[in-house]
Formats: sequence, structure tokens, C-alpha cells
Amino acid sequence: MKIDRDAPIGVFDSGVGGLTVAREIMRNLPSEKIVYFGDTARVPYGSKSKDTIIRYSRQIVRFLQEQQVKAIVIACNTASAFALDAVKENLDIPVIGVIEPGAVVAAAETKNKRVGVIGTIGTVGSGIHEDFLCRIDPEITVIGKACPLFVPLVEEGWLHDPVTFEVARRYLRELKEREIDTLILGCTHYPLIRSTIGEVMGEGVRLVNPAYETALELKRLLRDKDLLSTGKEQEEFPYRFYVSDLAEKFKDFANSILPYDVEMTQKIDIEKY
Amino acid sequence: MKIDRDAPIGVFDSGVGGLTVAREIMRNLPSEKIVYFGDTARVPYGSKSKDTIIRYSRQIVRFLQEQQVKAIVIACNTASAFALDAVKENLDIPVIGVIEPGAVVAAAETKNKRVGVIGTIGTVGSGIHEDFLCRIDPEITVIGKACPLFVPLVEEGWLHDPVTFEVARRYLRELKEREIDTLILGCTHYPLIRSTIGEVMGEGVRLVNPAYETALELKRLLRDKDLLSTGKEQEEFPYRFYVSDLAEKFKDFANSILPYDVEMTQKIDIEKY
Repeated sequence: MKIDRDAPIGVFDSGVGGLTVAREIMRNLPSEKIVYFGDTARVPYGSKSKDTIIRYSRQIVRFLQEQQVKAIVIACNTASAFALDAVKENLDIPVIGVIEPGAVVAAAETKNKRVGVIGTIGTVGSGIHEDFLCRIDPEITVIGKACPLFVPLVEEGWLHDPVTFEVARRYLRELKEREIDTLILGCTHYPLIRSTIGEVMGEGVRLVNPAYETALELKRLLRDKDLLSTGKEQEEFPYRFYVSDLAEKFKDFANSILPYDVEMTQKIDIEKY
Repeated sequence: MKIDRDAPIGVFDSGVGGLTVAREIMRNLPSEKIVYFGDTARVPYGSKSKDTIIRYSRQIVRFLQEQQVKAIVIACNTASAFALDAVKENLDIPVIGVIEPGAVVAAAETKNKRVGVIGTIGTVGSGIHEDFLCRIDPEITVIGKACPLFVPLVEEGWLHDPVTFEVARRYLRELKEREIDTLILGCTHYPLIRSTIGEVMGEGVRLVNPAYETALELKRLLRDKDLLSTGKEQEEFPYRFYVSDLAEKFKDFANSILPYDVEMTQKIDIEKY
């Protein structure tokens, strides 16, 4: 099958968080079209089992295939951890997750071989970043810390706020004490409080934003496979957004982090796929 | 159909929060058996649509019917708001939610006719407490305030904590300014930070705990229908707990709020019902 280089890129997440990944793709690949799916009916994925996440991811991939995407980005850490291999199995288009691009950069950047990972209970508990990092460099020590209050703080919009600072100070204390020099923001919401996290960790610690690294990796991958858009087929709405439930909150959040109006969000019944 | 008075009471919630309702039933109706279902695979309900909540609630009711319960308590504010009427339709056993018992007491207690309601975005946005309160007394002014950070703070275990106090101070400021004299704790998690909320609101404000009021209402209802347990059929495990996903976190939380060990938690596939 010949893949259409002017087809859109499919990006999916358990909800709104993956928009930070979509945003980096828009910034770094401005000629590309995007179909975004946020599984707002079944969010969060972090507390669900591997089997459930694989089933959900397969449904979403079937939906994205129907949209004739040329590549798929799993913009959710939990789904990247649990379902990337399963999703790749029967697909002839490229699929990437957000774990590996972040891990590769962290492994390259750390000097003292002590890397921190923050994320949801599910992501940190899965040990997936540790798996990747240790495969790249077995000498790296990985220190994980779940930060369950960060997502609701971001969704509340308390991005630059003394409460968020105090919560971050408490969550990150152990990572500071254990002298990491590199920290992976292992949850799609966290880039939005990057400055607070950076302030708490101090200048000596390099923050790795997997959303950004994933966009760069996607660019390399599309270039290698000769799938970068020609940019000829301009559309009035190059970005389409789909959700599985209640579009209102999604739109509010999307509008707060994307540089334009997300008017066209459509609800679909994902259980049908 | 004759209902067995020694059958268990079915209690369900979107997750762990409804355990505060189960706890009040245990305290106030110590001879009753309970079957608790926590929909941990599909939590939270607060951000989902009415249709989805009705579908979920009907599935859970079918499961509870299979357990031959004699009455059902919807221990979730969102499900009480959206699904109580739909669930009642085809059932010949009593069903109660947590909204009405709290509203009745708040209406009776308020002197200045200014009642506050705090809860999730879904519950507060639904205006359901306002509907009930104004039906009881049209002169009551209801001031709602969504407090989305309270649930994750409770689940983090930060019950008596300066961060929780500061978040409460900020959320509740408007309710204080608008001089409410009665405040409904409109989310099942909130009784666990009752003392912090009380400290912020001050002594002049009466806090209404719907979990407690629902247990009292259930007692009256069972007595009226001659359905109170005889207490003769003692069982070694009078309380059974079921969840739809990952039982570990549920057990931890249950053990932290219930006065004994919740060892027998079982996972079931709720999508089958």
C-alpha cells in the first residue's frame, strides 16, 4: 500500500493532555495536518489495567485508520507504555509513543547517570521509563516519583501559583536529595508547569519534555520514510479534534493551550470501533 | 414479589468515595449486610455525559440485582443527579440517592436562606441541589462552587495539611463572602476533610454531610417498608466489596477509612451487565 504523504497525522491521548504533544507537532511540523482523538469518556488511563488500555488503544487506532492517517502518535504515557507494541503489530503505517523519545534524550543528556521520572501513579509504577533508559545505558539509575496532584492543578489552571509551587516542592524533594541531573516530564500535562518544576529543581537539572522530543522524532521518521507533507493541499481547518464525551471542557482546555480557536471538536462513539 | 428483609443493601459509587456512605450505613444500621460496588474502571463520573452515566448506572444495578439486594443506595452525587429517576423506573425495590437527603436537611437548617453547595464540576454544574432546595423552599438562594482539587487531595491522604487548607481557603472564599449559613458537602470524598472545611468556614456555618443524612433516610425508608434486617442471619463477612478495575488502590483507601480490613475485594467485568 502506498501511503499518502499529504494525509493527516493521527494523535491520540486519554484526554486533553496529549494536546501538548499536538502543539509541539504544530510548531515543529507546520505543514502537517492533524487528527486528534481525546478519550475523554474513559480518562484516566493511569489507573486501568494493561488489557483494558490495549483494547481502548486498538479501538482508537481503528477510528484513526478510518480517518486515513499516514502515521500515529500515541501521545499518552500510559498507552505508550502498555499498548505501543500491540498497536504496531497489524499496522503498515509508522507508530510512535512518547516514552522512547524522552528516554533517548535523557540518556544522552545525563552526566552523573541519575535520571528522575515524574508522572501518574500508573506510568511511574509501570517502570517503563526505567526499562528504556537501562536498555540504552545500563549504568543509569532511574528515580521515579508519582505526582497525582499535578494533573488536577494544571486542569484548574493554577500554572504559576504558590499552591502548585508548594506541592511541587514536596513531590520533588526526594528527587533533589537523590541528586538527579536530568528529569523527564513523564506526563503530558507537566510541560504546562515546566517553569514551576524548573524553579523547584534548580538550574543544575535538565528538564526533558517528551512532547517536544516526540515531535522531533516524528519529523525524522517522516523524512526518512519520505512521508513529509508537500504542503500543497492547504485546508481551511488543518486540525480536527474528536473526543469520546462532553466536548465543552475539552474545548476550554484546548483553547487555553493552543494558539487558536478549537471550534470543530466532534464527539464520536468510540465503543463502536 | 416479596422482598427478603435479610438481603443485603446495594451501595454503588463511581469509585472509592461512596465508602463514606457505606461507613455511615455501617454505623447507623449495624445489623444490615452491604454489597458495595465501586466503578474504578470508569471513574470519574463527574466529567461524563448524562446518557453515559445512565448507561453505567443501569449496568451496575443489574449486577446488584444479581446479588439480590433489597434496596439500592446511589452513593455517587453525579449518578444520583443524572440516573436516579432512570434507575427507579423498572425496579420494585427502594432506591435512594445522596442528593435529596442532604438538601432536605440543609433546607431545614438554614436560617438566612443562603445555602452553599460544593462538589465536582459535574455535580455543581448540574444544578441538581438547587433544583431540590428550591422545590422545598423557593426562597432559598443556592451558591454552588466546584472544588476539583479536593478529591485528589483526599486520595493523596493530605487530610490535615497546609496545602489542603490553602486550597480550601481559596475555593470557599466566595461562599464566605456571600454569607451562607449552611454548606452541603456535595461530594462523597469531602466528609474526610470536613474539619479543614469547617475551620475555613468558621463556627457560624452548619456543614451538612449527605452520607450521614442518607444513612438516616435509608433507615426510615426500610422501617416504613418493613424491610429492616431481623439481624438473625449473621454472616462472617457481612460486607462485600466489588470493583471494576485494579483492586489495590481501592483496598488501601477502603482500609484507611473503614474500621476494619477490606480483604475480600473482588474485580468484576461490569461491561458484561
